[in-house]
Amino acid sequence: MDHGILFDHARTARIGLPEAVFCEGKPREALLELLHHFGRNQGHPILFTRLEEDIFRHLPEDLQARYDYHALSRTAFGERMPDFPHGRVAVVSAGTADGFVTWEAARTLTYLGIQNTVFEDCGVAGLWRLADRIPAINAHDVIIVVAGLDAALASVVGGLTPRPVFCVPTSVGYGVAGRGATALNSMLASCAPGLGILNIDNGYGAACAAARVLHAIHGLPEGCSPEGSPNRN
Amino acid sequence: MDHGILFDHARTARIGLPEAVFCEGKPREALLELLHHFGRNQGHPILFTRLEEDIFRHLPEDLQARYDYHALSRTAFGERMPDFPHGRVAVVSAGTADGFVTWEAARTLTYLGIQNTVFEDCGVAGLWRLADRIPAINAHDVIIVVAGLDAALASVVGGLTPRPVFCVPTSVGYGVAGRGATALNSMLASCAPGLGILNIDNGYGAACAAARVLHAIHGLPEGCSPEGSPNRN
Amino acid sequence: MDHGILFDHARTARIGLPEAVFCEGKPREALLELLHHFGRNQGHPILFTRLEEDIFRHLPEDLQARYDYHALSRTAFGERMPDFPHGRVAVVSAGTADGFVTWEAARTLTYLGIQNTVFEDCGVAGLWRLADRIPAINAHDVIIVVAGLDAALASVVGGLTPRPVFCVPTSVGYGVAGRGATALNSMLASCAPGLGILNIDNGYGAACAAARVLHAIHGLPEGCSPEGSPNRN
Amino acid sequence: MDHGILFDHARTARIGLPEAVFCEGKPREALLELLHHFGRNQGHPILFTRLEEDIFRHLPEDLQARYDYHALSRTAFGERMPDFPHGRVAVVSAGTADGFVTWEAARTLTYLGIQNTVFEDCGVAGLWRLADRIPAINAHDVIIVVAGLDAALASVVGGLTPRPVFCVPTSVGYGVAGRGATALNSMLASCAPGLGILNIDNGYGAACAAARVLHAIHGLPEGCSPEGSPNRN
Amino acid sequence: MDHGILFDHARTARIGLPEAVFCEGKPREALLELLHHFGRNQGHPILFTRLEEDIFRHLPEDLQARYDYHALSRTAFGERMPDFPHGRVAVVSAGTADGFVTWEAARTLTYLGIQNTVFEDCGVAGLWRLADRIPAINAHDVIIVVAGLDAALASVVGGLTPRPVFCVPTSVGYGVAGRGATALNSMLASCAPGLGILNIDNGYGAACAAARVLHAIHGLPEGCSPEGSPNRN
Amino acid sequence: MDHGILFDHARTARIGLPEAVFCEGKPREALLELLHHFGRNQGHPILFTRLEEDIFRHLPEDLQARYDYHALSRTAFGERMPDFPHGRVAVVSAGTADGFVTWEAARTLTYLGIQNTVFEDCGVAGLWRLADRIPAINAHDVIIVVAGLDAALASVVGGLTPRPVFCVPTSVGYGVAGRGATALNSMLASCAPGLGILNIDNGYGAACAAARVLHAIHGLPEGCSPEGSPNRN
Amino acid sequence: MDHGILFDHARTARIGLPEAVFCEGKPREALLELLHHFGRNQGHPILFTRLEEDIFRHLPEDLQARYDYHALSRTAFGERMPDFPHGRVAVVSAGTADGFVTWEAARTLTYLGIQNTVFEDCGVAGLWRLADRIPAINAHDVIIVVAGLDAALASVVGGLTPRPVFCVPTSVGYGVAGRGATALNSMLASCAPGLGILNIDNGYGAACAAARVLHAIHGLPEGCSPEGSPNRN
Amino acid sequence: MDHGILFDHARTARIGLPEAVFCEGKPREALLELLHHFGRNQGHPILFTRLEEDIFRHLPEDLQARYDYHALSRTAFGERMPDFPHGRVAVVSAGTADGFVTWEAARTLTYLGIQNTVFEDCGVAGLWRLADRIPAINAHDVIIVVAGLDAALASVVGGLTPRPVFCVPTSVGYGVAGRGATALNSMLASCAPGLGILNIDNGYGAACAAARVLHAIHGLPEGCSPEGSPNRN
Repeated sequence: MDHGILFDHARTARIGLPEAVFCEGKPREALLELLHHFGRNQGHPILFTRLEEDIFRHLPEDLQARYDYHALSRTAFGERMPDFPHGRVAVVSAGTADGFVTWEAARTLTYLGIQNTVFEDCGVAGLWRLADRIPAINAHDVIIVVAGLDAALASVVGGLTPRPVFCVPTSVGYGVAGRGATALNSMLASCAPGLGILNIDNGYGAACAAARVLHAIHGLPEGCSPEGSPNRN
Repeated sequence: MDHGILFDHARTARIGLPEAVFCEGKPREALLELLHHFGRNQGHPILFTRLEEDIFRHLPEDLQARYDYHALSRTAFGERMPDFPHGRVAVVSAGTADGFVTWEAARTLTYLGIQNTVFEDCGVAGLWRLADRIPAINAHDVIIVVAGLDAALASVVGGLTPRPVFCVPTSVGYGVAGRGATALNSMLASCAPGLGILNIDNGYGAACAAARVLHAIHGLPEGCSPEGSPNRN
Repeated sequence: MDHGILFDHARTARIGLPEAVFCEGKPREALLELLHHFGRNQGHPILFTRLEEDIFRHLPEDLQARYDYHALSRTAFGERMPDFPHGRVAVVSAGTADGFVTWEAARTLTYLGIQNTVFEDCGVAGLWRLADRIPAINAHDVIIVVAGLDAALASVVGGLTPRPVFCVPTSVGYGVAGRGATALNSMLASCAPGLGILNIDNGYGAACAAARVLHAIHGLPEGCSPEGSPNRN
Repeated sequence: MDHGILFDHARTARIGLPEAVFCEGKPREALLELLHHFGRNQGHPILFTRLEEDIFRHLPEDLQARYDYHALSRTAFGERMPDFPHGRVAVVSAGTADGFVTWEAARTLTYLGIQNTVFEDCGVAGLWRLADRIPAINAHDVIIVVAGLDAALASVVGGLTPRPVFCVPTSVGYGVAGRGATALNSMLASCAPGLGILNIDNGYGAACAAARVLHAIHGLPEGCSPEGSPNRN
Repeated sequence: MDHGILFDHARTARIGLPEAVFCEGKPREALLELLHHFGRNQGHPILFTRLEEDIFRHLPEDLQARYDYHALSRTAFGERMPDFPHGRVAVVSAGTADGFVTWEAARTLTYLGIQNTVFEDCGVAGLWRLADRIPAINAHDVIIVVAGLDAALASVVGGLTPRPVFCVPTSVGYGVAGRGATALNSMLASCAPGLGILNIDNGYGAACAAARVLHAIHGLPEGCSPEGSPNRN
Repeated sequence: MDHGILFDHARTARIGLPEAVFCEGKPREALLELLHHFGRNQGHPILFTRLEEDIFRHLPEDLQARYDYHALSRTAFGERMPDFPHGRVAVVSAGTADGFVTWEAARTLTYLGIQNTVFEDCGVAGLWRLADRIPAINAHDVIIVVAGLDAALASVVGGLTPRPVFCVPTSVGYGVAGRGATALNSMLASCAPGLGILNIDNGYGAACAAARVLHAIHGLPEGCSPEGSPNRN
Repeated sequence: MDHGILFDHARTARIGLPEAVFCEGKPREALLELLHHFGRNQGHPILFTRLEEDIFRHLPEDLQARYDYHALSRTAFGERMPDFPHGRVAVVSAGTADGFVTWEAARTLTYLGIQNTVFEDCGVAGLWRLADRIPAINAHDVIIVVAGLDAALASVVGGLTPRPVFCVPTSVGYGVAGRGATALNSMLASCAPGLGILNIDNGYGAACAAARVLHAIHGLPEGCSPEGSPNRN
Repeated sequence: MDHGILFDHARTARIGLPEAVFCEGKPREALLELLHHFGRNQGHPILFTRLEEDIFRHLPEDLQARYDYHALSRTAFGERMPDFPHGRVAVVSAGTADGFVTWEAARTLTYLGIQNTVFEDCGVAGLWRLADRIPAINAHDVIIVVAGLDAALASVVGGLTPRPVFCVPTSVGYGVAGRGATALNSMLASCAPGLGILNIDNGYGAACAAARVLHAIHGLPEGCSPEGSPNRN
């Protein structure tokens, strides 16, 4: 294999999460080579994030068929990680415009073998939509909140649940909301205590954070044996 | 009188709101001279905002007695405007730390002769505190929302009332919340439609905005006769 | 109906303003499905904002004919809300370059059944253009000011009228004016008291704010019965 | 009791974390009244954060004696929450200059009854200091990373542990590091997956986030019975 | 003389403006040494700006008497430059709170021997105050506009005069207006053409800019002989 | 004429500078209508700035021939203003990448009938290029400096000439220099006294500022009769 | 030659580094003219940076053949500078997404005749990848670190080597990492002492900085004879 | 010793630079304990930076006498590092107001045993002051440039010397120059190639960067034996 990337194959052993390929900003040729490589070699689960559909569609059809590609979230994977038998994660979003992030989180969880439920359109300007679903949401082990604009959903959810909550601001919106900085700062400044915040649009990271918690509750996944050394494990 | 300020005495005639003295950044001597002047001359209602207590306490006691000074809001006035007989304004705040702004709004309304009710500690992380009071809040004609941090209160209130809503972000908080920019942007980006936002900590301005609405509902105050000319009225 | 969005149909009952579809950032397919749905089903007034013309033109011609589409403001609606019989709103703008926002405000008012007049090219660098029109502007109940660059128009209008004033900064301009932050901050910092500011380019929101005031003056629209509860009304 | 604050006493029932008093920006008199109240009434554990020593020292000595005050972290509590018998949290910091945040996190954990270990001076410019301690750190259930400046510690720790990691940027430093924005952004942009970030200097919040995880692992604390309703529980 | 500063004595020869001592940030001892030196040696006109009164008052009284110190503008000079016999500069300000900058400009002009008139309290929220004075202002050769907050005065003046206009934003105000960035950006984005903008609070620089224009109109001052070489003139 | 823009035809009378059409952000159709109108009607000099070549080329060829279009500066005019017989302006730029601004300034001067000379590639990293030309530059009445990146040219020129200097930062560059904020701030913070700064890329404004100075030196242009009234002149 | 650029041919004599052509923002025609000129005239080594491939491919094929063009780094040169016989530079990068900067640095070094080695994929989230290569990296005279996101690599490398280190932040990433400001600030705030930081994406500049050091170690290149005069050398 | 700081004593072995104590933000008691410790124990050279004079003066006089304290630069050291026999560093500053940074750099060099010369008041607004000294400056091996405001000095020096140049922006100035961001960005955006930039006011870091270069030229200092391992050396 000659795709010019030095993979961190030891990542699963160290932290229980396999490396993923973040496609944005990588040259198209390098991405296609990687897609060829992992599509042809079984036994190496890998997740591609931020993979534009027009790049994926350049693959030969038989190779495309080896991947599960999801256009809205721009994610692709072939094999998934083994099912993680315990725990469930709720992904709660303010609106459908946040979908590209909401589903990046949900798809990453699915790739990691983790059960998840998506609750969309829970924006607090119509508070009853969230209120009706809080009992169902609280039935999960970890909650991911996805919201743009003023991201008020984070504070309201954070004040209604004892679960670990990870919040992802989205770049949805315009004017002061554009690029997501307002949602990010609003979540960081939330009056609800103990929320962990991710980078703007980082649905992948929220899924990883939720996985870390599930691994803390139910045990590390197979193959993870951290030794606490900066040397190669 | 020789205090070196050219007052806009025609303001009431043009816009129905008297000029006020914003004290922050004005030299102490100029402020004391103004306090002397308006304290000794009856018939000229005036409002002082951002007036630090240690400046006010430099006045002779008999002059202090002519003013109603309120330390938390740093406001002072002698005579008030005539009672405006119609309409009521609700001032709803997230927490007591916002009090210096909450009460600047309430005190300005009182100075303008407008009835008002203050609802403090309605932050959405404990949603029941707001829910219990919404019917009482909706019984007012105009609502002022005062909040810092993530200012999620603005969206939640805005989604539960048909009243005109004016929002004041506060500079309460630290880190990304410091100086109020997060609360300001969060309010501007609110998913609740039709909120009018004021500058950070501008409780005075919110009271003026509410007064403009009451004047639109119940008639301009006496002495206000806008002619639509940039010349002196 | 299967368009995957959980509408807040109770919004009119709670706040007197129907939900609108903000199209920017929503997938083209979802938008077309919504346009099909609301174009084919009578009795459900709905407003589409930020709807790009090339998406709208993908509709079959008979469906296009059921909508009133306005390219400059990127707005579309089929049925309008019932005429609101009272009150008028003035929309005053600094220049024709602000037209995409000016007309989003005016079109939203029209959709809400509210009478409105547009006054363009009132920028203060040629002050006579505004001075000549102030009496006509003051004959309205509420004033919306739309301006980019230094947004000095807000202060000048705010100092010449007792009416409620809502200001919309626009993203017109370049250099320090680019993206509208200067106009926004200038309006927030205005020396004229009591202006309510909206997010950059948010003509829709200014119309909603004006509607809240007209509803306060002349009575809530039919079907609006706020009960002050966060539960479903 | 007349201290003018409407407490969210139901918070423990809803989210498993008791309300705390954030003292910064609250008037000195209000704080002293609260300290008197909770010092004199047993059975109401409460935590004061950002409580300046010179305010605390204004209390009568017998009342001071009822509190455990810690000057570096500016925290005070009288009674603590019952010991939470399971789980341990590691608090890892880059340098002693971060101590005011490091110890706010550790003290909050102690107040919540949670066992914790502090590892200071682990900055990555001298990587061996961290390397030597990774096995001990990994023996904890949750890790809190506290760092200012470039906050590179977050990425290095995040790449060496499978545990849930919460990161607190500090306002330590000068120039571009001043006020903590660089550390915050660096943590949010970390190349290590699945870190949950808190607001600048928010050691309290990180402790609450860690508590949420321990509660997810070992069961909710007594008295916490979330029902998923925005009404009063 | 041993004050450790290498003066640019050739500045007058090159650009027609003598060097000044900007005192902010210079050690108190160095400033006192300079004040002694220039107070005792005649024939060397020099201007001190941003000189805090409590430093100046540390001088022996006889030395204080050799200086003309002005507390509001924090300026001091002993000898002035020779009277420049031609031309007049108008300094127009929005409010008395801008006085510390307004008078820094006026005092610098006086030091440079240039006639000037100050027009304060011309803020556009009360437009008649400016309108009444425009003819008098237009009777000057150069106009300096000093304003904070939204700085709308710059656009209005710029649209009413053909004179060269230099604008100084001030750091007056709070919230988004704080530190002067809004006023600065508003002036830079002005819709009035051909305004030259100075740094925030830089009244000294505006006076120098006006002096350059007067020198262009009426001839360079004595001793100014630019040769166009980067070498010492 | 029906182009929907309310021109400020009185501008020349008030300020000696005719209105120009800033084309960026105006709809293509409106621009073409204006180009048709002014191309067909003689006697109305007008300047178009930021006019993209592909819009201009949509005009019929005979109309194109009536305009002098300059692609690099994106400017067009038909008739010019009468020659202003006195004074010359130097336009000095750091590099050819600044050309789109340099030539907007020079072309505007030409349109205004003012003589001008362009000096390009004077960046201070190769100081001899500027040093050789300073005598020729100083032979002009007003100097315009155009520079991006660190804009160090402004300080060096400002320290070598007694002439009025107007500086235009450009949006040339990348990283911290991108969008021109660094050049703008660098010019505003210049250690050379008395420079008037324009908005980023505002070559048009610098030419207007220079024209104001020439009018101050040599007399107002014909038709300019400012009366100092905000009413129509 | 008539390409309208005044080259700083004396640069090599003054600073030992030849001028390069930064192509971004220069008109396509001007670039093609320069490529023709230098492609046809031997004996004038020149480097083109930020040269987009589609512009380069507009050259006739025989001219293309005279250049060594590298698409990823967007660099082109014909003749190179003479081999600099001493010293080696290591270019260490965090990931392949940084490649466009990594290789701009390496290619510039090659153009300058300097030996260099590239070490990619050394990001600290997988610390062993860097640890394995530190001895090889330390065998070079100067180290260039290229990283985006949190740029933690700079601190870790800076703490493991005594060599001069120059760091280039990259604009790789999204959210708070977008445009490279986080990486830049993180490098500037590094806890490792003595790192010299370059502008975002400035691989060219880092190579020049490394060359200055090699020239300090091993002697100035031929033709470099600085005389310390701002006049032409 | 019980001062609670885990020193990185291996730093000299790894990178050739001893650890220093950055005092800002460290508690006064911890600093005094450290000053006692190092003042009483010989053989451990250590440098204190940002050490306020009023803290230092709390030491007993005999201990004070063991330190060389320099108030302007806020630095203190007892023993120095052994004289580094080769190479000289020039520290060039724009003005005396930059002195607190200029001398932090110079003092750190002295502490490291490195010869250095300080050239103050070289600001480019009076270009002859720099021009006269360039030959003397070029006689040094490494150049440190210290400047605030527009920091134009960096570009001019960088264009006149082939030496390695490290630039330190200072927080001197006001308005847009305040806090040093303009100087920082200006240096990063410099048109002179190959400058290495440090954090705002980081004179200490510039001295370390210069030391790395001298060690590259003349050999690593005694005791420095980097092995390229992240483990303890």
